[in-house]
Amino acid sequence: MDPSTRIDKALRYALSRAGAGEAPPKLSAAMRHAVFPGGARVRPMLCLAVAGACGDDQPALAEASAASLELMHCASLVHDDLPCFDDAEVRRGRPTVHAAFSEPLAVLAGDALIVLAFETLARAGGVAPARLAGLVAALAKASGSPSGICAGQGWESEEKIALGPYHQAKTGALFVAACTMGALSAGREPGPWAHLGDCLGEAYQVADDLRDALLSEAELGKPAGQDETHGRPSAVAELGVRGAVSRLEALLREAVLSIPDCPGHATLEALVMAQAKRLVPSGLEAATA
Amino acid sequence: MDPSTRIDKALRYALSRAGAGEAPPKLSAAMRHAVFPGGARVRPMLCLAVAGACGDDQPALAEASAASLELMHCASLVHDDLPCFDDAEVRRGRPTVHAAFSEPLAVLAGDALIVLAFETLARAGGVAPARLAGLVAALAKASGSPSGICAGQGWESEEKIALGPYHQAKTGALFVAACTMGALSAGREPGPWAHLGDCLGEAYQVADDLRDALLSEAELGKPAGQDETHGRPSAVAELGVRGAVSRLEALLREAVLSIPDCPGHATLEALVMAQAKRLVPSGLEAATA
Repeated sequence: MDPSTRIDKALRYALSRAGAGEAPPKLSAAMRHAVFPGGARVRPMLCLAVAGACGDDQPALAEASAASLELMHCASLVHDDLPCFDDAEVRRGRPTVHAAFSEPLAVLAGDALIVLAFETLARAGGVAPARLAGLVAALAKASGSPSGICAGQGWESEEKIALGPYHQAKTGALFVAACTMGALSAGREPGPWAHLGDCLGEAYQVADDLRDALLSEAELGKPAGQDETHGRPSAVAELGVRGAVSRLEALLREAVLSIPDCPGHATLEALVMAQAKRLVPSGLEAATA
Repeated sequence: MDPSTRIDKALRYALSRAGAGEAPPKLSAAMRHAVFPGGARVRPMLCLAVAGACGDDQPALAEASAASLELMHCASLVHDDLPCFDDAEVRRGRPTVHAAFSEPLAVLAGDALIVLAFETLARAGGVAPARLAGLVAALAKASGSPSGICAGQGWESEEKIALGPYHQAKTGALFVAACTMGALSAGREPGPWAHLGDCLGEAYQVADDLRDALLSEAELGKPAGQDETHGRPSAVAELGVRGAVSRLEALLREAVLSIPDCPGHATLEALVMAQAKRLVPSGLEAATA
């Protein structure tokens, strides 16, 4: 089964459990709206790629890990779009959850997706109980405080933003978790995999800043120029477009070099390089040549 | 150490971890505001009581379970108080989190407390890895959808509320989890303990409905008459005050009878009966005599 089918299947299974029996219908629909159809599923793809490079001896656990990362990511998008944060009406070219349903249902759908992420790990954890604590801890670290998505978003309520922790927590943390959870789900030590996640997470953030600055709303599927509108720190504001492209290319080179020794090293290297091509905005690749 | 000290210590440890290092200061303060000072800590007390009755062979795991239940409960209160739900300014006699901090910080504090609940279990789970999957699954079942707090709150967005699932999910679920997680943390089968949680959860809901209808804002530490104001289903609206007291007393008798065979049966029975005295509004005990 190809990775995107494995991810889709694991997500559909998780959502079907959350909507089973006597679930309130609108909440179930709001949760599905937040998860399907998806974006590029970058984090779960990375998790499965790392699990594969590590031997993937428990495929169901790797799939649960991948799905839990995507559920957490989708939950954070639902809450980020709320009126009290970005107040966004459109996401991936469709109405956001609070626009399509209501604000209460968006809050609840986000909450329930966070819970579902951990539940998904617990349901699959039986096959390798010794790996579960590490997986739950890795997902929690990437999601809560002091170093997860909630902390990252929390920095936007401070007068003085600590830029390093802000970027690391807001985007980097789930990429680190994608790598460490991929390794953990295959029974490997997570530590050596964290730096790959760091590099890819920062690369993805820089690429996102570039897209936000360079593309139109139609191309993005959501409002453009949001960093400037909300006065948020961004690599483009800090380094300019050429500087940001240069930083992105350096990060992707570092990512490739950081892949630890593992059975599927060559395949993973090729995957990261293919992903790199996708991230650098076309026409700008030679900006730093 | 007495149970309330054990709970307080476990909660303080969890919050100190969430606020460690480079955590954004306001988010950390909002999380602490949501958890301290606490209410009666009914759910974690019940969890420790059941763990004690089952032998409590892993006290740190029982304490983590108790703390995780309270963190989840506090998270749900923070989100319930938001402007898009109850729009409450006061809770336990103090400003609610969004009133004291801001709406974004209240959303994030709730999210981060949900994550922290699972993280707390994972950190303690190392002492008995085989018990962790059951504990995470029990907490998730009580919190998400289809049968947890999120689902319970989700029913309030439906035109037709399914009353049974609504009450069971909104209040009962965390009481069931308190009992099953108490048993699980001590290495016992959770199944036989669910009915005790069912009875106590419903009793607590009926007692809460009675307090909401009978007490003043000063006595409650929050606005009174909220069920009537929001047109929410309540035992008092359904059965009248005398009928609700009668139902409460029947549930508490059933709770005592439902305690499974266990080493600490007599002590737990005495605890449940003491709790029962606290729940029935004074002056109304004889209403059904």
